Amino acid sequence: MRDDRGGRGTVGAAFAYARHSRRRYVKELGELLRFRSVSADPRRAPDLARCARWLATQLRDAGMASVRLIDTGGPPLVIGRSPYRPGRPRLLVYGHYDVQPASPAAWRTPPFRPTIVGSDLVARGASDNKGPLFAYVKAAESMMRTAGRLPLNVTYLFEGEEEIGSPHLRASLERHRRELAGDLVAISDTRMLGPDRPTLVYALRGSLTVEIRVDGPVRALHAGAFGGAVHNPAHALADILSSLHDRFGCVAVPGFYDQVRRPPRRERFQLRLAGPSDERMRRQAGGRPLWGPPAWTAYERTTLLPAVTTIRVESGAPQGITAIPAHAIARVNIRLVPNQTAAMVLSALRAHLSAATPRSVSARLKILSSISPVQTPTRHAVLRPAIEACVRGFGRAPTLLRSGGTIPAVAHLQDVLHSPIILMGFTLPDDNIHGPNERLHLPMLWRAVDTCIWFLHSSARL
Amino acid sequence: MRDDRGGRGTVGAAFAYARHSRRRYVKELGELLRFRSVSADPRRAPDLARCARWLATQLRDAGMASVRLIDTGGPPLVIGRSPYRPGRPRLLVYGHYDVQPASPAAWRTPPFRPTIVGSDLVARGASDNKGPLFAYVKAAESMMRTAGRLPLNVTYLFEGEEEIGSPHLRASLERHRRELAGDLVAISDTRMLGPDRPTLVYALRGSLTVEIRVDGPVRALHAGAFGGAVHNPAHALADILSSLHDRFGCVAVPGFYDQVRRPPRRERFQLRLAGPSDERMRRQAGGRPLWGPPAWTAYERTTLLPAVTTIRVESGAPQGITAIPAHAIARVNIRLVPNQTAAMVLSALRAHLSAATPRSVSARLKILSSISPVQTPTRHAVLRPAIEACVRGFGRAPTLLRSGGTIPAVAHLQDVLHSPIILMGFTLPDDNIHGPNERLHLPMLWRAVDTCIWFLHSSARL
Repeated sequence: MRDDRGGRGTVGAAFAYARHSRRRYVKELGELLRFRSVSADPRRAPDLARCARWLATQLRDAGMASVRLIDTGGPPLVIGRSPYRPGRPRLLVYGHYDVQPASPAAWRTPPFRPTIVGSDLVARGASDNKGPLFAYVKAAESMMRTAGRLPLNVTYLFEGEEEIGSPHLRASLERHRRELAGDLVAISDTRMLGPDRPTLVYALRGSLTVEIRVDGPVRALHAGAFGGAVHNPAHALADILSSLHDRFGCVAVPGFYDQVRRPPRRERFQLRLAGPSDERMRRQAGGRPLWGPPAWTAYERTTLLPAVTTIRVESGAPQGITAIPAHAIARVNIRLVPNQTAAMVLSALRAHLSAATPRSVSARLKILSSISPVQTPTRHAVLRPAIEACVRGFGRAPTLLRSGGTIPAVAHLQDVLHSPIILMGFTLPDDNIHGPNERLHLPMLWRAVDTCIWFLHSSARL
Repeated sequence: MRDDRGGRGTVGAAFAYARHSRRRYVKELGELLRFRSVSADPRRAPDLARCARWLATQLRDAGMASVRLIDTGGPPLVIGRSPYRPGRPRLLVYGHYDVQPASPAAWRTPPFRPTIVGSDLVARGASDNKGPLFAYVKAAESMMRTAGRLPLNVTYLFEGEEEIGSPHLRASLERHRRELAGDLVAISDTRMLGPDRPTLVYALRGSLTVEIRVDGPVRALHAGAFGGAVHNPAHALADILSSLHDRFGCVAVPGFYDQVRRPPRRERFQLRLAGPSDERMRRQAGGRPLWGPPAWTAYERTTLLPAVTTIRVESGAPQGITAIPAHAIARVNIRLVPNQTAAMVLSALRAHLSAATPRSVSARLKILSSISPVQTPTRHAVLRPAIEACVRGFGRAPTLLRSGGTIPAVAHLQDVLHSPIILMGFTLPDDNIHGPNERLHLPMLWRAVDTCIWFLHSSARL
């Protein structure tokens, strides 16, 4: 038996196989894209179940030794495991088969009838995330069919609720923790900076959303009869919201930054080179001067620093009535960075709220959701296989980025499995994911399959 | 010819006439209450027009020399003038014949089928304002039918849009200014403190409502991608709203108090005795500690001092989306007191807003409505007839009060006619105006007619 941990020779057959199978791969991806697996629409539950069964068959055909659908309370999880190879590294590949809703009126072709337009495959989910997920599967198939086995232990985990925030994932992960934990988790659901710019995301911000509710008078009070003598909860809430930042744009809640990891100079330098410029972010936001903690670039502020964002304020009656409102409500989203914990931030916020609330009103804080930040240290050995795969697949080293966003599924994987995570996706900036006419550039799909073959190959040496 | 400016003797016949006509008065008031004159409901325009014609007939029957319906663009104004008496004072009596909506489900008897329950007449509008308006008319009738003439020149002005803010009144007053101006305006549309506590209101606060709109990014921006680098308009608006008051509850807009009349010690002393206690206002507001400029009672804060009240705040999407909102809007109501002008307050507010708005957002101020404060000096001779009428009608001097509220019609009358104004109404605190089962206490109606006879009598000596 030859050593399948070796050089190009051992995977060369897989590339040839993949190249010769392209027509079939497009046909099969087309089948996957026909499922109307819209997780936000409860009426689509049967479509999601059918899509999951189809994926199970795909995984079996790709040579997985065991394939199961796991009941979650929502759409099933699809888990496929490669034939067991003792002593070899364990890799978990995550993807999601649910898609965003699509209103056909805005599309040039029907969103669930995949159509080839030039060299693009146009359909809802083509790029987010069915196409990239498919590339990871076809990499395994190409290797299995040529080498007869994979050089490591791969588990595929496909979810049907990513687009609605993965409400059932965490509990399912906890039930199947031992089976899923391993040396590395690869996420197929992120973007590249451009067609020739492979990108690895190694950190995400967390997201803590709270509701702050200020109660004032027992009911809305006539502004003529009581205006000037009763504390207005809308004013008290404005005081509270105003007290969350200082005039420089730094968060002014005492203790808020205490746990924030101080980024090494090297990382800041690298991020400044790799990330978008202030000018670019300013233009994207509409052109007004940017804002936020001085001495940090906008990209750093949105990735290395936590942020407090009021996403909704509501007080008073919509129509006409001239009254002191009985209450005022704000919804505040806090983006967390390592090593902040929701518990510590909440305790700082509660203390601040209590100090900022006079006796003439009352204030309450309610937690609406809490997602941890994600981070894999950039010097960590687990990055090497992905870097190598990008170099081989794209002829170029990947850009290493932090993202300011939050992917609940990824945080759950990190929190439950305690495995290092890398995000290597193949979505292009103009694939129009979540929008009409979503598409996948087919040459990108072929590169993605090749890169995933390299990735499986290199991960064997973890 | 006897002197009809004389004592009780000259009006004694009018009282007897009124007493003997009570049965007919109740019947006629019942007719008035049957009109579904709901100004807020456009489908009721024909009912309002019929009600106005009925009132015109009443005024003619009461002996008015000329009665006209005036087209306003909304429901007509009813104007009735007594036979002209050269050299005699000119009194304008204001009332409104439109009523609040009534949903029969909440009523024990049909709201537009007047029903006598005990000694109450129950119907929508019984107390606000058809009953009191009717009392003023019946006073004139009682005098006309007994003395053959009135001791002064009285003009009745009945409006059909008070409950929706008198949108057409000002323009109509301006067109008929010369005909309506005179020595005194009496308003029948205010409350008494209790059945034996006649009350004269001599001042109202004005009301200026503005919208403050803060614009931030060009569209709602992903809180993950931009949170921390883009100024949130909800935060900028919170800063602005927070800056409107200092921590004592005083308005912190520079120049805001500059025009506020300094009340004489005597008036403050009198108002503290006459007005509700802090404890009472605290209980009415729901029991929390009161709030506002120190060294003033709650009643003073709501009548002698201006107030800034945010009546509505709105920012962000109602559902789910975690984004920096593109804009934030507040609706702010300012209660003005003499001698504040809307122009001056607006200019102070604009300067403050412009100083409080950083370049990272923009803020705009829009005027939604503006109503002047109303005040008749308490030492003014015009108060004397009303005080005397209350003493005669109720056996007790009236309580002189300021109201913190605003009645647009009254402000328009003051601003256009430049006549002194007194508010002498007969509504009791538990008449449940604007609510279900609105009622008029019939013994109060008889006292009101008597008091109005005295009032017409005494006003002749203005």
